[in-house]
Amino acid sequence: MEPWHPPQGVETPCLLVDLDVLERNVAAAAGAARAAGLALRPHAKTHKCPPIAARQLAAGAAGLTVATVAEAEVFAAAGADDLFLAYPVWASPARGRRLRALAERVALRVGVDSAEGAGALAAALAGTSAQVLVEVDSGHHRTGVHPARAGAVALAAARVGLDVAGVFTFPGHGYGPGRRAAAAAQEAAALLAAAREMERAGLPVRVRSGGSTPTLADADPGALTEVRPGVYVFNDAQQVELGTCSWADVALSAAATVVSRTGPRVVLDAGSKVLGADRPGWASGFGRLPDGPDARVTALSEHHATVELPGGAPVPAVGEVVRVVPDHVCAAVNLADELVVVCGGAVVERWPVAARGANT
Amino acid sequence: MEPWHPPQGVETPCLLVDLDVLERNVAAAAGAARAAGLALRPHAKTHKCPPIAARQLAAGAAGLTVATVAEAEVFAAAGADDLFLAYPVWASPARGRRLRALAERVALRVGVDSAEGAGALAAALAGTSAQVLVEVDSGHHRTGVHPARAGAVALAAARVGLDVAGVFTFPGHGYGPGRRAAAAAQEAAALLAAAREMERAGLPVRVRSGGSTPTLADADPGALTEVRPGVYVFNDAQQVELGTCSWADVALSAAATVVSRTGPRVVLDAGSKVLGADRPGWASGFGRLPDGPDARVTALSEHHATVELPGGAPVPAVGEVVRVVPDHVCAAVNLADELVVVCGGAVVERWPVAARGANT
Repeated sequence: MEPWHPPQGVETPCLLVDLDVLERNVAAAAGAARAAGLALRPHAKTHKCPPIAARQLAAGAAGLTVATVAEAEVFAAAGADDLFLAYPVWASPARGRRLRALAERVALRVGVDSAEGAGALAAALAGTSAQVLVEVDSGHHRTGVHPARAGAVALAAARVGLDVAGVFTFPGHGYGPGRRAAAAAQEAAALLAAAREMERAGLPVRVRSGGSTPTLADADPGALTEVRPGVYVFNDAQQVELGTCSWADVALSAAATVVSRTGPRVVLDAGSKVLGADRPGWASGFGRLPDGPDARVTALSEHHATVELPGGAPVPAVGEVVRVVPDHVCAAVNLADELVVVCGGAVVERWPVAARGANT
Repeated sequence: MEPWHPPQGVETPCLLVDLDVLERNVAAAAGAARAAGLALRPHAKTHKCPPIAARQLAAGAAGLTVATVAEAEVFAAAGADDLFLAYPVWASPARGRRLRALAERVALRVGVDSAEGAGALAAALAGTSAQVLVEVDSGHHRTGVHPARAGAVALAAARVGLDVAGVFTFPGHGYGPGRRAAAAAQEAAALLAAAREMERAGLPVRVRSGGSTPTLADADPGALTEVRPGVYVFNDAQQVELGTCSWADVALSAAATVVSRTGPRVVLDAGSKVLGADRPGWASGFGRLPDGPDARVTALSEHHATVELPGGAPVPAVGEVVRVVPDHVCAAVNLADELVVVCGGAVVERWPVAARGANT
């Protein structure tokens, strides 16, 4: 373990954001999207923080992506005026009223993947300028229809009066070792096939939206018009292990105190209630220690992270503070009330996680 | 799937508590502990809700267990006056001041498993009536010392002026199929061995504290003086699959809407940000549907639960609301701002999750 000294005023466990790295990540993705001729619409579910959204928009993002109506409400209240709810939202009467209020306030796009969903959305959004995008399954097998069915869903949506602007997909199957390029290729193929089906149904396609952090570098500007990565602002242990980024690109870590030590094993006070319990099967552990690349987080319970250190490595003492990078940063941020922003070794700001728990 | 109708006013996703089942669970554990002559000190990290703690205390609990200083602060503010922080707390200067303020207000016990930890606690707690308990590893291999070292740690703590009241352990290795009875036996043996070591060091043992929900039925009143189950108030899919409880004992479920459907596969709007991502390797899925015992939650992402239904079973329609019981209820509750309390088919109260995110 390399020694690391927490900034003054940090009480563990908490999430630290390295402002310089964050701003570099924001600028790099904005520059890459611009160079490729792709609109960048970052997914705000990762950070849930208006000050980070403001940086993304200032760097040239076309708008924000959100996962829920409640997230849309938080970012609209913070001044965002162009939001894509990339989810096949079910517009129950109560949720429909909230969607309508949003559509009257911002440029709103909503996902749809069924005729039933379209019907409920139409009832909520009639007479507004809201648009819908048809969700397509590009291989992740979650929501979204097969590309061959995109025309039928688009037509069903158009017939109930919705403005169908195009198609979108989430290539989530790119979150696996060696899968990025293939997932990006499937994403491109699925969007082009779905767009053809829509056009065959007589509906012009203005938007072909895709993208995730792992597939970002391989996003095909011939097939996509827009990318929606989220994790890239912070990165995480998963992205390091996938090879999407290096340690120098990781902007968020948890500060944790060693509370117990037995031989080469230490236990930290940041457990699954701080780091999140999302662990892909292929990950080497439940998060990583950037100052001890050979250390492994072998177990996680609610308030304990068990760390095994390699034989002979210096073992941190009880009371020492270390950094842990979560496996999946979106899950960690959603557990925190605030992000502690660090610059030049000092705490410079504390950003409330304004959309934490905004699930409805 | 059996049809289920959500109470009026429920917007998904959210967590519902069945008040009758909750109160039955509280009473049953209180009665069992009383019959066994064991003090019951429920772990409040599960519910994080003062109205539930009040019910546990009214039913005869000796006090509450908490995992963090911040949780202790929440329950002390709500009127609890006897708290055990069952964790080897590192008393940094800032945390030490908070511990001292607690000790001046309530009967406080704190865990310790090292001489270093004891030294920091002594600096914080000198002159207060706070007690410490030595944490012992009974086979879970997380925090806690080997029982043979309990005397040495107790002596180190006593020498710096701490009042060492006894020993405690968490038999977390009982969370596995077929492991409950063996874990309870190891718990009993470890506590008795550690107590002997303390007494050999000349320190009387007043408390031998153990227990978890899976090992509760097998807790040995000849070895333990106190039990600290948490999950039992709600139970969860994990406890059902372990055989610790039946579906009729499950008091908490998430209400979720079907947002997408493909053949026998549906996707619900309650993902890992609602249910939590804690999934033991032996569990049959990421949560369970009580109204469709043969359905399996085969994948979970932040806002999506993918449910596979058995061949020929009725598939719920897009827009239908169903119930999902999380694998690990502590993780789910910690993600919610409130619990929606249901009685007689109607929402009767909404309880804020007052200690949500109280990790420091």
